[in-house]
Formats: sequence, structure tokens, C-alpha cells
Amino acid sequence: MSPPPRDTLYFPSDHRPFLEPHLPPPNLPPPTPTSLPFTTLTFATSLDSQLSLSPGVPTALSGPQSKAMTHYLRLRHDAILIGVGTAVADNPSLNCRISGAGGYGGEGLMGQPRPVVLDPRGRWDFGARSKVLELAGSGRGRAPYILTGTEPEKEKREILEGAGGKFIRIRVTRVSDGENKVEWKNVLRVLSEEGLRSVMIEGGGAVINSLLQAENLPLVNSVIVTIAPTWLGVGGVVVSPPRCHDDGGNPMAAARLHYVQWHPFGEDMVMCGKLIP
Amino acid sequence: MSPPPRDTLYFPSDHRPFLEPHLPPPNLPPPTPTSLPFTTLTFATSLDSQLSLSPGVPTALSGPQSKAMTHYLRLRHDAILIGVGTAVADNPSLNCRISGAGGYGGEGLMGQPRPVVLDPRGRWDFGARSKVLELAGSGRGRAPYILTGTEPEKEKREILEGAGGKFIRIRVTRVSDGENKVEWKNVLRVLSEEGLRSVMIEGGGAVINSLLQAENLPLVNSVIVTIAPTWLGVGGVVVSPPRCHDDGGNPMAAARLHYVQWHPFGEDMVMCGKLIP
Ligand SMILES: NC(=O)c1ccc[n+]([C@@H]2O[C@H](COP(=O)([O-])OP(=O)(O)OC[C@H]3O[C@@H](n4cnc5c(N)ncnc54)[C@H](OP(=O)(O)O)[C@@H]3O)[C@@H](O)[C@H]2O)c1
Ligand SMILES: NC(=O)c1ccc[n+]([C@@H]2O[C@H](COP(=O)([O-])OP(=O)(O)OC[C@H]3O[C@@H](n4cnc5c(N)ncnc54)[C@H](OP(=O)(O)O)[C@@H]3O)[C@@H](O)[C@H]2O)c1
Repeated sequence: MSPPPRDTLYFPSDHRPFLEPHLPPPNLPPPTPTSLPFTTLTFATSLDSQLSLSPGVPTALSGPQSKAMTHYLRLRHDAILIGVGTAVADNPSLNCRISGAGGYGGEGLMGQPRPVVLDPRGRWDFGARSKVLELAGSGRGRAPYILTGTEPEKEKREILEGAGGKFIRIRVTRVSDGENKVEWKNVLRVLSEEGLRSVMIEGGGAVINSLLQAENLPLVNSVIVTIAPTWLGVGGVVVSPPRCHDDGGNPMAAARLHYVQWHPFGEDMVMCGKLIP
Repeated sequence: MSPPPRDTLYFPSDHRPFLEPHLPPPNLPPPTPTSLPFTTLTFATSLDSQLSLSPGVPTALSGPQSKAMTHYLRLRHDAILIGVGTAVADNPSLNCRISGAGGYGGEGLMGQPRPVVLDPRGRWDFGARSKVLELAGSGRGRAPYILTGTEPEKEKREILEGAGGKFIRIRVTRVSDGENKVEWKNVLRVLSEEGLRSVMIEGGGAVINSLLQAENLPLVNSVIVTIAPTWLGVGGVVVSPPRCHDDGGNPMAAARLHYVQWHPFGEDMVMCGKLIP
């Protein structure tokens, strides 16, 4: 066997147990027609709750240990979902580079999650040279599933299917201000129908803020947030869901976690918990 | 001695050592003409970096343990400073209710910090019934020093001085957009001249965001932030300093901590560190 690639990551086994209660159980049964995948919401923010300085500006937030953790989380999920905003801004890899995963010392595509891109109006202009497709081509990751409400171009479909990915049609409703909306329950149902038993949702801002709304809280099984001890300053991509009100019209907190556990990782902090539905 | 009041707080001694490296040393020498007080920036936020749902809306963010910690911090500082926004919105007590502090089982005003309100244009409409003055009247706290650039009304001056507080004139510059600006160095110098060797700055949003700007970072000796595992949702009072750029005009993080320590407190997390100047 060839030596693992130079970008292989190592996540020490003594760092793993604290995550276990917040991860999909190891032997999830295959999906049934009514099941939804185990859904983990996970991302890294600054103290001022920002994911990045700006879409497209590479922002080193968390340190190397938290990065390795993210890749360990990828190892433990069947799928990894991002919004098209992140796909466009970051040209992300979306594979698992933990030592032992397929392409990183492991057999085949073992442990490689299925990348899923939520792209309601088909605006991700990917090609064979996009990182995620290159990695799929070299056996170091899977090709993405793209969830969309539009009819994809023939050329894109060919590239995607040639690499082992596909477009999946989902229902997109257009809300008043021209914004697109998908029902997260539908998204998760579709993933389940594809045999995916667990999904980690990594971002970006629009995706996270949409999942942190009251109607979607019950869909999320677990939350894992890395907090870096830095303030990015006004103007970046912010995680903060829309304002909520109680029956009397008074403002109230939008979402709260319980069963919270905190775990320091270098200078960063990892917070795990469950959303109160 | 009468029993301590019912709102007395207890902060167990085994919770204290982790804070010690982040607190003013116990026997600070008296101020000199060039010294500045040991300055601690401390506040509680939600995961989306908000101090409250809205100015004036009581927002239970942190749990009872973190609240007791805040009062322990007050015990350990000569002064506690807030912006006029907080004074107006919250009618705050600004005293120390830890068991053993003056009025809470302790002698005289022992351990009671001096409240300081930054009120550049004199808009805090306090009276003898304001909480902080009532507490001063009943020996459970000190009367405030109000830092202002305006000439106070005679009636207000009498109330304040009668309770043992005073107005202190500071230089206020009016910046382009009608906003007032004080130099934090001047503010701290004034406190030092009053014999105050340490100050904890508790908020609110405008005060904190101003201190987290590059020119003020070297003035802050210690940062202690409590993070509650909740997202308040867009529209509250946000901690996020103005955007910074590097020499090439690229956005960069506004502020970062080092020597970071994290300490869980119930479901909350307390983060201590020093700002990288
Ligand atoms: N720090 C981290 O952990 C992390 C993780 C991931 C991403 N990021 C950062 O996040 C930034 C991107 O965030 P972003 O907010 O711009 O983009 P995003 O959330 O990745 O994608 C947003 C787009 O996805 C679609 N979408 C999201 N929620 C939807 C819903 N409920 N219904 C229908 N469509 C939905 C919309 O597409 P349409 O506009 O086409 O309708 C929306 O504009 C980048 O800077 C990236 O680096 C950081
Ligand atoms: N969670 C916590 O730990 C915590 C702690 C404290 C406060 N709070 C919350 O914070 C909220 C209030 O925050 P806020 O932002 O509205 O008010 P604030 O920061 O308390 O006060 C802001 C005012 O102080 C003056 N000021 C601040 N910085 C200045 C500077 N550098 N130069 C000159 N003047 C300056 C200005 O007065 P002028 O406008 O008159 O010029 C400004 O409007 C309340 O909801 C309160 O409950 C929360």
C-alpha cells in the first residue's frame, strides 16, 4: 500500500470518547421509508459568531486540533451537507482526510462521506477541476449529490455522473422576497432515500440560520460547535437565527441547547449539545 | 450582626483558583501619576454574541453559578464601569452581593466596588430611587461616579453627592456622525487619579465594541467572558467590534485572545484570556 498522502490528519484516540454521545451510533440500521438521517449540525465560529470574514475570504478560525476533529466527524457520518454559498465561495474538498479513511491509508472509499450540496436554483458552476470532483477522481473522496429545483445542464450532469455523483431534484418554493426555500424535512427524507443514515451539516451561514429556526430544531439530533477565541469584527458571515417572539409578542431566545458538554482543544473550545425542540 | 440579606450570593472557594491568574493581584500598590488601573473586560453573551435581546429587555443569559462569579469579580475590583446605555436600560445595582462583602455579612463597604457610569452627554436620568443609589443609602454598595462631558443639573449633583458619589468631568470629542467619543486612556487615568487601582468593565455593547478596537486593546489587562449555550437571534445587543483591515486592505480579525483558559460553569462556559495587543 502506498504511504498516506501528506495532508493526512491524525485525531488521537483519547480525544474521541467525549464526542461519542453526540455522534450517530456506530451501527445505525438502514433507512426505512419513514426514517430521517441522524443529523449533526457542526461548524466553527469566532466569539462574535462568524463563520468567515466574508464569503470567499479564507479565514483561519480554529486550530489544527479542531480541524482534525472536523475530519473525524466526517468519518463518522454517511454524508456532509453544505449550502451552495459555501460551494461557490470556498471550492471545498468535503472529504475525510483522517488517517485510515479511504485514500488516506484505508481501503477503497471507506469512511468517506457523501458530499451533498444544497443548490436550489443551480448556481454552483463546478467542473472537473473543482476540488471535490478531483478528489473523487483520485479515489480520495466521493463525488457530490447536488440537491436542486432546476433542470441541470447536460454537460454538468455528465461530469457529475461520470465521477459517481448525481443531481437530485427537490421541491423548492419561492418565498415572497425572491428567496428560495426548501423544507429541511424533504432534504433529509431525500438523503434517507439514498441510503444515507447520517448527515453532518457544516454550513454556511444561511443553512445554519435556517436550521436554527423553531420549525427545524426537532430535525437536528446533535450540535457540535467549535469556538475560536477571536472576534472577527462586523461584516462577516454571521450565525444568528431570525428573532423569535412569545405568544405575547415579546422577544425570546431563538434556540437553546441542553445536555451541553464543553471540551477544550488547544485554544479553541468545542461545545456539544442537543437543541431543545 | 444581622443575618446577610436574602439575595446574598455564594461563590464556592474551589471555583476561585482558576480565575486568579486573570484577576488584579490582591495587593496592588496605590496608583502613581502615570499608572493606569488593572482593567478587566467582562460580560456574558449568547452563542450569537449578544448581551441582551434588546436594551431594556431583561435577558436571563447565564445561570446562577456564572452570576455568583460576576459578583466575585466585583469583589476583586476597586471599580465597575458601565456605559450609560446600560444604566438607562437596566437600572442596575452594580454592587457586590457575595457573602462577606460589606452589607452582605461583611463590615462597612468592604469589597464593594465603586460603580462608574460613562455618560458623555449626561443622559442618565437617575434619582434617589435608582437601585444603585438606594443600595448606597442602605449601606449595601457605593454611590456611583459619573464620567461626563456636560455640566450636571444641581438637583442631580446633590442627590449624587449626598449618597457619596460624584460627577467627574472628562473630555468628550464629538466625532463626525454626531457620536460622542472619549479616549479610554483618559477614562482610565481619571479612575487612577481617584485612587481606583482596578476596574472591571461590564458593558454594554457600545462600550465593549469600543474597547475591542485596535487602539484600545493594550489598555485591557484581562478578558473574562461567560458564554451561554443559547442563540438569542438577530436584533439584540451584539458584541462585535468594527471591521479591521491589513496594510493591503484585506479584512482581518479585529481582536484575538491568547493564554486562553476555559472553565465550565453549569451549562455555561467561562473563557479567560489576554488580548493580543
Ligand atoms: N466556519 C465554518 O465552520 C464554515 C462552514 C461552512 C461554511 N463556512 C463559510 O460560510 C460562508 C458561506 O455561507 P453563506 O451563508 O454565504 O452560504 P451557504 O449557507 O453555504 O449557502 C447559502 C445558499 O444555500 C441555499 N440555501 C440555504 N438554506 C436554504 C433553505 N432553507 N432553502 C433553500 N435554499 C437554501 C441558498 O441558495 P440560493 O441563494 O441559490 O437560493 C442560499 O443562498 C463561506 O464564507 C464559508 O467559508 C464556514
Ligand atoms: N450580558 C452582559 O454581560 C451585559 C453587561 C452590560 C450590559 N448589558 C446589556 O447591554 C445593553 C446596553 O448596551 P448599549 O450598547 O446599548 O449601551 P452601553 O454600552 O452600556 O452604553 C453606550 C453609551 O455609552 C457611551 N459610550 C460608550 N462607549 C463610548 C466611547 N468610547 N466614547 C464615548 N461614549 C461612549 C455612549 O453614550 P452616548 O450615546 O450618550 O454618547 C453610548 O451610547 C443592555 O441591554 C444591557 O442589559 C449586558
